Amino acid sequence: MVYHRFSKDLPFTEAEYTRRLDKTRTAMDRAGIEVLFVTDPSNMAWLTGYDGWSFYVHQGVIVLPDADPVWWGRNQDSNGAVRTVWMGDDRVIGYADNYVQSTERHPMEDLASRLVGMGLEKARIGVEMDNYYFSAKAYATLARELPDSTLIDATALVNWQRAIKSDEELVFMRRAAKISEKIIDGLVERVEPGVAKNEVVAEVYRDALTGADGHWGDYAAIVPLLPSGSDAAAPHLTWDGRPFNQGEATFFEISGCYRRYHVPFCRTIFLGEPSDIFRRAEAALVEGLEAGLEAARAGNRACDIANALAAPLESAGIERGARCGYPIGLSYPPDWGERTISLRSEDETVLEPGMTFHFMPGLWMSDWGLEITESILIKEDGPAETFCHRPRKMFVKE
Amino acid sequence: MVYHRFSKDLPFTEAEYTRRLDKTRTAMDRAGIEVLFVTDPSNMAWLTGYDGWSFYVHQGVIVLPDADPVWWGRNQDSNGAVRTVWMGDDRVIGYADNYVQSTERHPMEDLASRLVGMGLEKARIGVEMDNYYFSAKAYATLARELPDSTLIDATALVNWQRAIKSDEELVFMRRAAKISEKIIDGLVERVEPGVAKNEVVAEVYRDALTGADGHWGDYAAIVPLLPSGSDAAAPHLTWDGRPFNQGEATFFEISGCYRRYHVPFCRTIFLGEPSDIFRRAEAALVEGLEAGLEAARAGNRACDIANALAAPLESAGIERGARCGYPIGLSYPPDWGERTISLRSEDETVLEPGMTFHFMPGLWMSDWGLEITESILIKEDGPAETFCHRPRKMFVKE
Repeated sequence: MVYHRFSKDLPFTEAEYTRRLDKTRTAMDRAGIEVLFVTDPSNMAWLTGYDGWSFYVHQGVIVLPDADPVWWGRNQDSNGAVRTVWMGDDRVIGYADNYVQSTERHPMEDLASRLVGMGLEKARIGVEMDNYYFSAKAYATLARELPDSTLIDATALVNWQRAIKSDEELVFMRRAAKISEKIIDGLVERVEPGVAKNEVVAEVYRDALTGADGHWGDYAAIVPLLPSGSDAAAPHLTWDGRPFNQGEATFFEISGCYRRYHVPFCRTIFLGEPSDIFRRAEAALVEGLEAGLEAARAGNRACDIANALAAPLESAGIERGARCGYPIGLSYPPDWGERTISLRSEDETVLEPGMTFHFMPGLWMSDWGLEITESILIKEDGPAETFCHRPRKMFVKE
Repeated sequence: MVYHRFSKDLPFTEAEYTRRLDKTRTAMDRAGIEVLFVTDPSNMAWLTGYDGWSFYVHQGVIVLPDADPVWWGRNQDSNGAVRTVWMGDDRVIGYADNYVQSTERHPMEDLASRLVGMGLEKARIGVEMDNYYFSAKAYATLARELPDSTLIDATALVNWQRAIKSDEELVFMRRAAKISEKIIDGLVERVEPGVAKNEVVAEVYRDALTGADGHWGDYAAIVPLLPSGSDAAAPHLTWDGRPFNQGEATFFEISGCYRRYHVPFCRTIFLGEPSDIFRRAEAALVEGLEAGLEAARAGNRACDIANALAAPLESAGIERGARCGYPIGLSYPPDWGERTISLRSEDETVLEPGMTFHFMPGLWMSDWGLEITESILIKEDGPAETFCHRPRKMFVKE
């Protein structure tokens, strides 16, 4: 029996915990990895349930082939771990606070000594080399402290196990989708010439956090993005105190979030009479989206979606230089994508039922922009299902 | 003359831009660094003005000894860079989109070729080894692509230049402080037994984003933290849909934010009649805060604040294992600290006028927690000034 000092509101069932761990161990075995050190907070949460804003210090989950995972992090955060993880309290270990942001010692020295204590000093250890939360210094320190080990690049190893969503995960995503719809409805209602952007974003947060259908709302891994006019050429600008203006388009890139699961959704609002350029771009984009949804079928490839989208855009003389989507699900800042598949012409990953994507063909031209997007679910048969159900168009408010 | 295609709302004056760059170049010179590659988004913004939620892909600023910095990032984000940075448009360069999250190529291959193009293939290049946004893979790729260069650890080199705030920065921080006060006032008014946490957080965001004194509000680098009762033992739990309960304390860790500048502020609200344990802890903590503020003087050291705090806590039998503060200012997720000085017994950094800290002696015991904190400014003379002006106590609502 595992010992839990606290009652917990775990985000998934025991069957799901076992399934996730089994899948991960199989992938580790295939990659020749004996022990996996997981630093991506999304992977940590997906494997163990751990939830907390502590990823600004070094932490991780140690996945072993034959025993429950170990949560490892800052001492004070072990209090959050024993309250949120599947494992027993004895599978939570903390390091002393004076390792935090010190120039004299590094948390990876503590991790190394823990691994040595587990008899893993000569192990083949998987580490997530290309992740926000595994720094160059973390790698260099671990390599120095464990000279007899072999460090293996396990970037996205766990992320790939997350690609096909379980029914439990889809329940959470459908709740997030309801929130996304609510946010867009609120924007279409409230955005008017003269209204300040920050005031509108305050309402976006209210809609996001009060939730929908009786379910509360979590914070999204990316803040609302809403550039207007010429600034809409830039996909990642946030807001300020300036007003929306007559004659300008603004795209809104938002996501509802339920227990860390996201369903991003983007719509553009034009205040006034759109120019022909916008109307033609809208028509081509909607045609491309519909062609992409048709191509988004089990057995087809990621690139088939991208190529289907590209044809009507090219006919309209619009060249997109960027990928048009990415997998979505559980996420922590700074990204709500899963960082595995990319919807682009060079990605030949075969689509499988249960995969979920943000089909995101944003148009960012030199001095204008337009976003109309759909989050989608690959079905057993037929074209993709969209998570949200709102008119697939540019909203025009005269 | 530098060429700017767009009018810009830059967050600091030209004099300030020059001052920051000069300080950084002096520090580079002292560290034997010829070219500095800055990946920390806070450092990028402080040096150039760059602002956007694009730090989930590889990007950075190249600081040179004798020419304006170069912004380097994903092609689509160069549209945001030309709209937000001090430098001319010719100092903004982008890499192709198929470098993003690819297993075939890495953005650092593009960066390396740019540096070679600048004649820097044999340079001593500073990189921020221990930063969220410079991954182990980024380091390994850059080292492989530039075999004749010398990569030097420049972790926190720019962060240290940010420690003493200019008058312009203090103006922004005082605006953030007004927002922090407004958020805490709203919490004291709204938190009641039976009110759901997510509903209260929605109001926190409204207060934060609508701003104060006629200035708009930006997103904080950390979301509101508000654990209750036993969960308050864990410093970094976020919220869910459960209600506040009679007989429980909840601490609220929040920060107002104005144009990326933060002034964190924490207060605890007890619903009902606090036990003697809470009353004694509150008294000791307030005494410790006041002793710490007295010790927070130019010429004293960081550890003097920590030691002044510790004495009354120890008398009350409370042992804190953690540091009690960190520098604050401009920040991006996942942290609103500057990651240089730590207020703890082993840090002997001498305090200087203009330094700003979150004096943060959170108490996280095994099954309860209490936070009463102050963000402070070190003055020319006398004890520290607090940015916020609210009763330094646990708020009790019977």
